Amino acid sequence: MRIQRVVRDLVTTKRNFWLASKPLRVVEDASGELEVALDPIGAKTGDYVVTIGLSAARAAAGNPNITTDLTIGGIIDQWDEQRWRS
Amino acid sequence: MRIQRVVRDLVTTKRNFWLASKPLRVVEDASGELEVALDPIGAKTGDYVVTIGLSAARAAAGNPNITTDLTIGGIIDQWDEQRWRS
Amino acid sequence: MRIQRVVRDLVTTKRNFWLASKPLRVVEDASGELEVALDPIGAKTGDYVVTIGLSAARAAAGNPNITTDLTIGGIIDQWDEQRWRS
Amino acid sequence: MRIQRVVRDLVTTKRNFWLASKPLRVVEDASGELEVALDPIGAKTGDYVVTIGLSAARAAAGNPNITTDLTIGGIIDQWDEQRWRS
Amino acid sequence: MRIQRVVRDLVTTKRNFWLASKPLRVVEDASGELEVALDPIGAKTGDYVVTIGLSAARAAAGNPNITTDLTIGGIIDQWDEQRWRS
Repeated sequence: MRIQRVVRDLVTTKRNFWLASKPLRVVEDASGELEVALDPIGAKTGDYVVTIGLSAARAAAGNPNITTDLTIGGIIDQWDEQRWRS
Repeated sequence: MRIQRVVRDLVTTKRNFWLASKPLRVVEDASGELEVALDPIGAKTGDYVVTIGLSAARAAAGNPNITTDLTIGGIIDQWDEQRWRS
Repeated sequence: MRIQRVVRDLVTTKRNFWLASKPLRVVEDASGELEVALDPIGAKTGDYVVTIGLSAARAAAGNPNITTDLTIGGIIDQWDEQRWRS
Repeated sequence: MRIQRVVRDLVTTKRNFWLASKPLRVVEDASGELEVALDPIGAKTGDYVVTIGLSAARAAAGNPNITTDLTIGGIIDQWDEQRWRS
Repeated sequence: MRIQRVVRDLVTTKRNFWLASKPLRVVEDASGELEVALDPIGAKTGDYVVTIGLSAARAAAGNPNITTDLTIGGIIDQWDEQRWRS
């Protein structure tokens, strides 16, 4: 799993049916690179989260029909940004 | 999922049977690297899209027989290119 | 599989049900990049471990319902940090 | 999918049974990095090809028993090398 | 598939049951980065090998219960190290 930070929500009007069933969040990693994660948990902007990739992402979405390759699996209680960014 | 931009269509004469059933688009990421994504949605050149990889790519193609590893899952309504490129 | 070193434990209050069933460890690779691995074996901080990714990660977790994409598969007896870091 | 160029064939005397059933090609990407792809289509040295990774690679091989993680899925009709290399 | 070179064996006392059924080799790629591959073929230190990743790695292990994400699939007859390293 990776450690990422929620940057903002993502709005898409035209999208895959199953992907539309849960919120999508733009997340960044330690180097600032952006990705999009499905959020079945309810993370907020600024939260540090554990994200799950691969086939486990679909299992973590709560419904294997959801076509996600990155899903938020947990919100981290305390995270040292200094350590992460360097 | 990743955020990519549609650059142009891709034409292949000799190709895998199942891959031939949907349009292929050349997409680029924030660093300009090119990949090829299956497009079951109808994105146009210049659109910013959410692309789905891994086994979810096949599910998102609408038919698990389609041998894709990257599928366009949604068209993003608004995307700040400045933020993405930097 | 990859060679990583256990940095510390990870605490998450709100998390995916299945992911909560085993300890999570923050691990680093040779370049210092951090990831999170499920630990069904009982590695300790400072241990060099072999980590298993992909769908094999779930199998290695001991229960395929566990939504992990990185699982500690073994503790390495001897590892030359000099060779690894360079 | 990725865009790669066929560099040459690969000869391996001792190899996995299923991997032996189709030709293997050494392919390079835009940065010159080399990988090995299974070729069920008949690409020639110098051809630009679309390669399929992940579990879709096995499906594209025409037989799911073939243990490939990268399979040539199509030959590209026209490709601008200048654009690709830069 | 990727082209890697066998650097040495890896010894782990405490490890996943299924992972223990075949030898593990430390392999390096062209940039010198180290990984660990399962070896069902019998490669020797110094051999250039084709390694199989993803779900195909488990199939190539000869037993899908083996929790590997990288498996040696073949030994390359001739490999030009100059070309590989540059």
